Amino acid sequence: MKSYCWMNGKIIPAKQTKVSVYDIGLLRGLGVFEVVIAYGKHPFLLKEHLRRLRASAHYLGLHVPVSDKQIYITILKLLSKLREPQALVRIVLTGGEAIHGIDFNPCQPTFFIVVEKVFKIPAQNYEQGAKLITFNYRRENPCIKHLNYREAARLQKAKNKAGAIEILYVSGGSVYEGATSNFFILKGNRLITPKDGVLIGVTRGLILKLARGKFKIEERLLKFSELKSADESFITLTTKEIVPVVKINNLKIGKGIIGPRTKYLMNKFKQYARSG
Amino acid sequence: MKSYCWMNGKIIPAKQTKVSVYDIGLLRGLGVFEVVIAYGKHPFLLKEHLRRLRASAHYLGLHVPVSDKQIYITILKLLSKLREPQALVRIVLTGGEAIHGIDFNPCQPTFFIVVEKVFKIPAQNYEQGAKLITFNYRRENPCIKHLNYREAARLQKAKNKAGAIEILYVSGGSVYEGATSNFFILKGNRLITPKDGVLIGVTRGLILKLARGKFKIEERLLKFSELKSADESFITLTTKEIVPVVKINNLKIGKGIIGPRTKYLMNKFKQYARSG
Repeated sequence: MKSYCWMNGKIIPAKQTKVSVYDIGLLRGLGVFEVVIAYGKHPFLLKEHLRRLRASAHYLGLHVPVSDKQIYITILKLLSKLREPQALVRIVLTGGEAIHGIDFNPCQPTFFIVVEKVFKIPAQNYEQGAKLITFNYRRENPCIKHLNYREAARLQKAKNKAGAIEILYVSGGSVYEGATSNFFILKGNRLITPKDGVLIGVTRGLILKLARGKFKIEERLLKFSELKSADESFITLTTKEIVPVVKINNLKIGKGIIGPRTKYLMNKFKQYARSG
Repeated sequence: MKSYCWMNGKIIPAKQTKVSVYDIGLLRGLGVFEVVIAYGKHPFLLKEHLRRLRASAHYLGLHVPVSDKQIYITILKLLSKLREPQALVRIVLTGGEAIHGIDFNPCQPTFFIVVEKVFKIPAQNYEQGAKLITFNYRRENPCIKHLNYREAARLQKAKNKAGAIEILYVSGGSVYEGATSNFFILKGNRLITPKDGVLIGVTRGLILKLARGKFKIEERLLKFSELKSADESFITLTTKEIVPVVKINNLKIGKGIIGPRTKYLMNKFKQYARSG
């Protein structure tokens, strides 16, 4: 797969870009990241992603070593080499080489940007709706976009085996978030999504903005038992936008088909994204 | 610092050994590790470490790609190049290069072994006792030796600033474990250490073995309030063995000096380790 990486001022094929075996992002998970989607030459909602990257970095005692403008220019350079209508842009920042195995020097971070073609899930997920499976888990520190997605990665095989598109984390009778997505339900005109204990997704933010006025928005604790009376459901994530959900484990959501309100938001999102 | 790394059948200076920017250990924390100490040419308690490595790997759907015997032989080769009286041996296994950013092929893992000189903490910690600081946190899945030590790494600066040797995780009124160690207290002849919600350390196991018969062992939930009536305290970890603890935050433990029972265990440990 074609992919390019910017690191230390140079752009080379990503497959040839390496980090030290001492990198504290690898050895200890001390790092943060963002995934941005680019439509053509336009990195979508970059400002919002970089704001979150800097906030996540700050929590770990890290600093993004280049300006937003430099990141933007670098991404444009990478995109012009890749030449894809849609590209995934991954920005990674770690504490650099570990000191005594566990400490780090924030002035010598590892920072790189990779671009590659977006991996597309089968179109039927958007046309007929997707399935989720639940897992009893709640991420620690989900507000920070740190590198610990161990359980998400570990559960991919179970997810694929179940014919599901995403894992939904449930804990103590409440629904939190997808392994790499935010979760929404619709009950009539009420759009409900968890707020606490989840990563506040950039796509989530846009959806709420697009929904304002049209729907009654409820950002709150969502009980798992409420799913039974949901009319519609969907997940949002940068690389897959809005994915309509019609089944969670063996539970059919609403009528088991993509509902009109989800379709409305999918169209609204497309219009917004394509208009740049 | 002199250090060597074995990866893909070759031994080269660790500083020159790299992993892909796509490694799922880096991007998603999907990996496990062990740290073993070698006294001379003898990797100490290697069997116990490798047993735990295989158990941790199994949980993540990974397999250690080489036999225990091959690992032993490889470590001996690395040690003969390093030539240090005490060496730290770090064994790392990840899911290899990420597939679509989050999945992995367990048949193509990343596996490497690094050896380097052991970093020694100041001798006064062993002679006069060390200080710990507490942090309100409980690790997720601590029984598995996965790569997520983000909070431990993040807190190193606060630890150093406080003149402490380790961070003690406390949650819901209970004491769990050090950021990279197990925690013990002594009340008279009772040796008390948490059992649930902690990583079951290899050194911890040996200490309990050495203490059997001499002390009454209590592996159980340990309330923070119990620290006030503790006579002695210590932490155990592979690279630092037993470190006597005389202060936790501003709380003096017992008389604030290293107690006779801790000294007894420190001597017992030394005898056992040096006898091979």
